[in-house]
Amino acid sequence: MTLTADTPASTTLDLGSARALSCRECGHQTPLAAEFACPQCFGPLEIAYDFPQVTRESIESGPKSIWRYKDLLPVPADVQSFPNTEPGFTRLIQADRLAAELGVRKLWVKDDTGNPTHSFKDRVVAVALAAARELGFSVLCCPSTGNLANAVAAAAARAGWDSVVLIPSSLEQAKITTTAVYGGTLLAVDGNYDDVNRLATELAAEHEEWAFVNVNVRPYYAEGSKTLGYEVAEQLGWRLPDQIVVPVASGSQLTKVDKGFGEFVKLGLVDEKPYKIFGAQATGCSPVASAFEEGHDFIQPVRPDTIARSLAIGNPADGPYVLDSVRRTGGAVGHVTDEEVVEGIRLLARTEGVFAETAGGVTVATAKKLIEAGKIDPDAETVLLITGDGLKTLDAVSAHARPTATVPSTSKAVREALEGR
Amino acid sequence: MTLTADTPASTTLDLGSARALSCRECGHQTPLAAEFACPQCFGPLEIAYDFPQVTRESIESGPKSIWRYKDLLPVPADVQSFPNTEPGFTRLIQADRLAAELGVRKLWVKDDTGNPTHSFKDRVVAVALAAARELGFSVLCCPSTGNLANAVAAAAARAGWDSVVLIPSSLEQAKITTTAVYGGTLLAVDGNYDDVNRLATELAAEHEEWAFVNVNVRPYYAEGSKTLGYEVAEQLGWRLPDQIVVPVASGSQLTKVDKGFGEFVKLGLVDEKPYKIFGAQATGCSPVASAFEEGHDFIQPVRPDTIARSLAIGNPADGPYVLDSVRRTGGAVGHVTDEEVVEGIRLLARTEGVFAETAGGVTVATAKKLIEAGKIDPDAETVLLITGDGLKTLDAVSAHARPTATVPSTSKAVREALEGR
Repeated sequence: MTLTADTPASTTLDLGSARALSCRECGHQTPLAAEFACPQCFGPLEIAYDFPQVTRESIESGPKSIWRYKDLLPVPADVQSFPNTEPGFTRLIQADRLAAELGVRKLWVKDDTGNPTHSFKDRVVAVALAAARELGFSVLCCPSTGNLANAVAAAAARAGWDSVVLIPSSLEQAKITTTAVYGGTLLAVDGNYDDVNRLATELAAEHEEWAFVNVNVRPYYAEGSKTLGYEVAEQLGWRLPDQIVVPVASGSQLTKVDKGFGEFVKLGLVDEKPYKIFGAQATGCSPVASAFEEGHDFIQPVRPDTIARSLAIGNPADGPYVLDSVRRTGGAVGHVTDEEVVEGIRLLARTEGVFAETAGGVTVATAKKLIEAGKIDPDAETVLLITGDGLKTLDAVSAHARPTATVPSTSKAVREALEGR
Repeated sequence: MTLTADTPASTTLDLGSARALSCRECGHQTPLAAEFACPQCFGPLEIAYDFPQVTRESIESGPKSIWRYKDLLPVPADVQSFPNTEPGFTRLIQADRLAAELGVRKLWVKDDTGNPTHSFKDRVVAVALAAARELGFSVLCCPSTGNLANAVAAAAARAGWDSVVLIPSSLEQAKITTTAVYGGTLLAVDGNYDDVNRLATELAAEHEEWAFVNVNVRPYYAEGSKTLGYEVAEQLGWRLPDQIVVPVASGSQLTKVDKGFGEFVKLGLVDEKPYKIFGAQATGCSPVASAFEEGHDFIQPVRPDTIARSLAIGNPADGPYVLDSVRRTGGAVGHVTDEEVVEGIRLLARTEGVFAETAGGVTVATAKKLIEAGKIDPDAETVLLITGDGLKTLDAVSAHARPTATVPSTSKAVREALEGR
């Protein structure tokens, strides 16, 4: 993380303590810019920092959003002076009733449904937007089938930026509405998500003012997920959990939670201690779980077929790094069927009053399976990341979430209905 | 608010600084209990307090939820030791872009969509549940057609309580799903909302362990809305706004925001200053606006016909008190058509990235109308209360929120589509 003396510093950009882009594969460093692939080996670039002195007190006196950690993100010092969605610092709730059902001693749920557009994507998009402004972009863009589209359109609206969101034309009406309402440019593309993604890369190369959050500014964007790790540690009272379960789509989130924990240790904000990171996938799109089980360090792409659409990335870019984090910490990657996903959503809702989208069902159900398999230690403290809202995937549970009974409007009828249960 | 020396104190209950129930009409005081109507005149009962010393610092050091104000609510001192949804302390965002569109100088949006079930109802239900536990109840109940049902079912699930939620059997599937998923007892009642409400009152009388949050524990429940006023004042930097626009259903929220402001002044937490409170209704259910316009101090009930269903209370119990607050402060009550409601939702979304339910559209559109009518001062600072989430009323905007264009998957097609706009 420390730069060598001859690393070129980007003197004209204010991206906080970010100092350079660094290749995850070969370590080559290159100045901060809108790049995502190493010019030497085409490996993924990530942000290298020279972190300033940061204390618990300085963080605690910050805003109740991800900007309390702005010194640890690739964003300008004045990031809060621009209108933004102010995401983050969502609830971490102690989940005793779910713990009892799962047979573990201590469990926490990080409930990221409280974000402005009700998924963790608000975090990464806010960081991407702040960096994109500094890098000279003026249009916020993404290919997406759901949460990311909502987050980009909302963040751009709030900032007064144009947005260009690309979606497959077959997308359900509800997902179109929840993006289109923000009034940016929403393009329905004839093709599947792979086609839309390819088109995004092409457009990013052609339009120099367009920042595709998960393409040409991806290194900045991805850093936003570190805040999930930071918040868990701070909200636990400035300490790391023993175990954490993270859903895996591209895999970026899991690696960034790991990175966030590591940075807090290095900065002396928490004590160093062993922790295990667990990945959660849907069986219908479980290339990382398969690689983990088979002992591979590469990912065999799959064609996704699962109701957990926000996790349905068949060729996850950060899959190998997920394997690294999980294996290094002694965790595991599990996977669950769509039926188990629905059960996971319902279990979390009825025990803790948190209604998660399908990705949350994946997390809960995978945690259950890993506990039963003895991989998650029931006596150690565990955190589950719930990263999106059940209101976004109502269809997954609508067949199961029915009225207990339909009754005439009399108290006698109610009594009889309840006694008859 | 001060009790006379002979007021019976409820020595066995811990409801914080709440000391008695006090009749809003005749002032008669009665011990804290699950009562909602004055035994002498049948007027509505509200909570009377003996507030302790409270400072800005003591509040600021509290949790980031409504419990930071627990000393000012009718809840036990140990309220946080019981699992609850931890609602409140939602974003107050400076809304410069909306201000520019509306032609006002300084505008804020209080975004209560960030609550656990994405409406302000989580606040009132959390207070109701805490008081209900202390009052000896064990089942949390309500009649509802939407937000309240979600909030009650979620809060009960989290607390490990049974819940009984009554809904009209004609309710849309999405609203059934978002309540039923929490696993309590959900009874679909053959009849309209009035029938359901009557049934709730009957059941509350018959089942001594059932706390109907908005019936037999209503005085406690209603106090939860004060926290909206508290938070606005605290988040503005410990001061009151000049003007605030509040949606009016039963009218309770508006009167409690007013009460919250008044209490902060009395407690010395903010400086006293004039402020104006404005009420917002949909034209299709605007009995309070009608009474205001006609100079009446009584409410003529109406049969609601509006897309703003969460505000569709034709005979609002607190309507007269809304008129009191609005007239005393020099405000007004406005109303807007369903078309204007939809425009209000879209305006807020495209300027600030906040997607509100129909009630929020009512607030924004009414503010616009009152500004145009010269009733809201464009040079004074204004706060808009956005109390529920657009994901709950997608149908209202789905016809308007469409893709900009549908294109083949080539960058040429994208360019042509954008140039053709």
